[in-house]
Amino acid sequence: MKVAILGYGTVGSGVFEVLNKNKDIIMKKAGIELETAYVLDLRDFPGDPVEKVLTHDVNDILNDPDVKVVAEVMGGVGAALKFTRAALEAGKSVCTSNKELVATHGSELMKIAQEHGCRYLFEASVGGGIPLIRPIMTALDGDDIIHMKSILNGTTNYILTRMSEAGAGFEEALGEAQKKGYAEADPTADVEGHDAMRKTAILASILEGKYVSCDDVHTEGISAITVTDFKYARRLHAGVKLLSVISRENGKITAMVAPFLVREDNELYGVKGVKNASLICGNAVGDIMFYGSGAGKLPTASAVVADMSEAARCMAGRSDVRQVPAWTEEHANVVSYEESKNASLIRVAAADEKEARKAFGDIREVAPSDGEFAFITPVMSEKDFKKAAAGLKIIGRIRTDFHD
Amino acid sequence: MKVAILGYGTVGSGVFEVLNKNKDIIMKKAGIELETAYVLDLRDFPGDPVEKVLTHDVNDILNDPDVKVVAEVMGGVGAALKFTRAALEAGKSVCTSNKELVATHGSELMKIAQEHGCRYLFEASVGGGIPLIRPIMTALDGDDIIHMKSILNGTTNYILTRMSEAGAGFEEALGEAQKKGYAEADPTADVEGHDAMRKTAILASILEGKYVSCDDVHTEGISAITVTDFKYARRLHAGVKLLSVISRENGKITAMVAPFLVREDNELYGVKGVKNASLICGNAVGDIMFYGSGAGKLPTASAVVADMSEAARCMAGRSDVRQVPAWTEEHANVVSYEESKNASLIRVAAADEKEARKAFGDIREVAPSDGEFAFITPVMSEKDFKKAAAGLKIIGRIRTDFHD
Repeated sequence: MKVAILGYGTVGSGVFEVLNKNKDIIMKKAGIELETAYVLDLRDFPGDPVEKVLTHDVNDILNDPDVKVVAEVMGGVGAALKFTRAALEAGKSVCTSNKELVATHGSELMKIAQEHGCRYLFEASVGGGIPLIRPIMTALDGDDIIHMKSILNGTTNYILTRMSEAGAGFEEALGEAQKKGYAEADPTADVEGHDAMRKTAILASILEGKYVSCDDVHTEGISAITVTDFKYARRLHAGVKLLSVISRENGKITAMVAPFLVREDNELYGVKGVKNASLICGNAVGDIMFYGSGAGKLPTASAVVADMSEAARCMAGRSDVRQVPAWTEEHANVVSYEESKNASLIRVAAADEKEARKAFGDIREVAPSDGEFAFITPVMSEKDFKKAAAGLKIIGRIRTDFHD
Repeated sequence: MKVAILGYGTVGSGVFEVLNKNKDIIMKKAGIELETAYVLDLRDFPGDPVEKVLTHDVNDILNDPDVKVVAEVMGGVGAALKFTRAALEAGKSVCTSNKELVATHGSELMKIAQEHGCRYLFEASVGGGIPLIRPIMTALDGDDIIHMKSILNGTTNYILTRMSEAGAGFEEALGEAQKKGYAEADPTADVEGHDAMRKTAILASILEGKYVSCDDVHTEGISAITVTDFKYARRLHAGVKLLSVISRENGKITAMVAPFLVREDNELYGVKGVKNASLICGNAVGDIMFYGSGAGKLPTASAVVADMSEAARCMAGRSDVRQVPAWTEEHANVVSYEESKNASLIRVAAADEKEARKAFGDIREVAPSDGEFAFITPVMSEKDFKKAAAGLKIIGRIRTDFHD
């Protein structure tokens, strides 16, 4: 079966490499040989093995009826959206790592795929190489998934790990990440949590089977985290992680992305560096965790190729053709994050201790640093927290998944 | 769609409970309503809700054409084998948690299922509730899986965790496990590694697509592990885990179950108590880990019900009908464990130091206890280890996945 790759960047070249390197294994597992017939890129790659199949014109792919599966690894929502629509309308399955496109246009594209008897698959869009979306959709049918806590961005997890282990400041750790190629020149999308937000919207949409938009995901980044915060974290036997938290109850869902204090006894505590992990709680299975490389050329390519293999079996009429899209265009019943309940570590000036005690009531004091007064609040809704904090000069706040 | 449950023990009652409790969720995810029409058990359960559907005669199930999916959760290879054969031959899919039956008769039963257009599924037979078999078979098509290191037995992991954290001796920790219901009155199958051996044979067979028998899996238990071993482990920043280790290279496979020293920087180090985990290394995805409850009523039931949901979609012609069984009756190309290479922590009497150094060459000395001489050997094959150790009075040996 002929396949094509849209985009020869990091992930695209990884997909090209894996399809060649593991040709026989894929053939054995999928029962179908996948032949890379075209790679679309506007650039030329003199001397690169891709030259033999390189094209600058997407129509070469769209108009070739033998191409049944297309990997869209261009990124963005411009040409990627246009080409994906066209490919699906031509009855070709599309597999992507493009979280932005899936989070914004996923339901529309899955609907088009359904109407044209093909698939729109996106395992690589969340958690990179970690099999996450497929297990959630196929292996937990017996469970009501109550909540999901995940580390979905390797860049921020690397920065927080360095701040914790090397005592580095945010800027310094970010610089390291950029040197190592873990962070982009403009790191905003990662450090401000937008990347994790998109992935969270995708996971939430899958769990509900209805559309959860990026705007539904309250998002806070890590740029305000300081060395002092880690001093407190250590005293609490905790680390700081940028968590994606999804909670579900009676047909309602809440989703947020924010830094959390995660204690040593939490499975996510040990997720270091650029690794990603997702801790899923089902009402029958209890807590299960999926862990691995959330980014990188080959891990992400691995997930794209696994989707291409499934799509190929599907196009050959030998595999799961789920008639229902992962989620519909109907908007999920999203509860404002203001209703979600957490405890928080709060830092105020030592002089404000009395005020703070009055505002928050049953607090747990934490050994202070630098003339501060620090404490853990009771578990309270974000709304109540705002009220209580209104009069206070708060130096720092980090949510915790524990109170005492 | 009518379904039946063979056996109303711990897992069987869990399956019954999950099918009822999560009826609507399963209906929503599978697109099919699963109605528990029969539960087979020789006992009576006066006052239990199961009474309404309880039968003592398997023929009630075998002869009801409306029963399309059967959960076999009886255990053993006697009646369970007979009933499974009969159900598959009647064109009913069978989903099981019976690792012994899958490890010994899996290929035969999958062949029968294939011939009769139904499925034989066994997600629950390895790793309890952890989605492990399905991800391996459906989510890693793009990868060549090079090795797999797993903690597959909760009883032994609980005992080793207690020995490590509470400084308990083996007998004491075993007693605790028995009190808590984590270990059976006769703990042999767990502590001697037979349970992990069966699960390892199943995983190895899946990875190769050919039969790997229990006899192919070199197996050592944990009953010889002492408090002193943990003293050394702590000095090496390591824990002791009963590992299932599967390695694959050029169409050859090695599989063993044995206690290993696992260092703090290994993802499996943090797997405590009755939890299970599997660390899978693919040539594209790198290391990924699946973690969760490896046993227990509801987690195991969750995996059985997920299989029943897939089987139901399959019987309704709406899901993946893989024509190829997970493995065939052809025997895999298994390399003797004597060829597998590891380093080991070795303990000898202080007086034997010179001999030990002569026998093992480039060793790494470890701070000794109790008038012993202790060291880490070079990485060497089991065969070479035997030769080197021949003349020595070895007090204790534990393999390590590290040398220096």
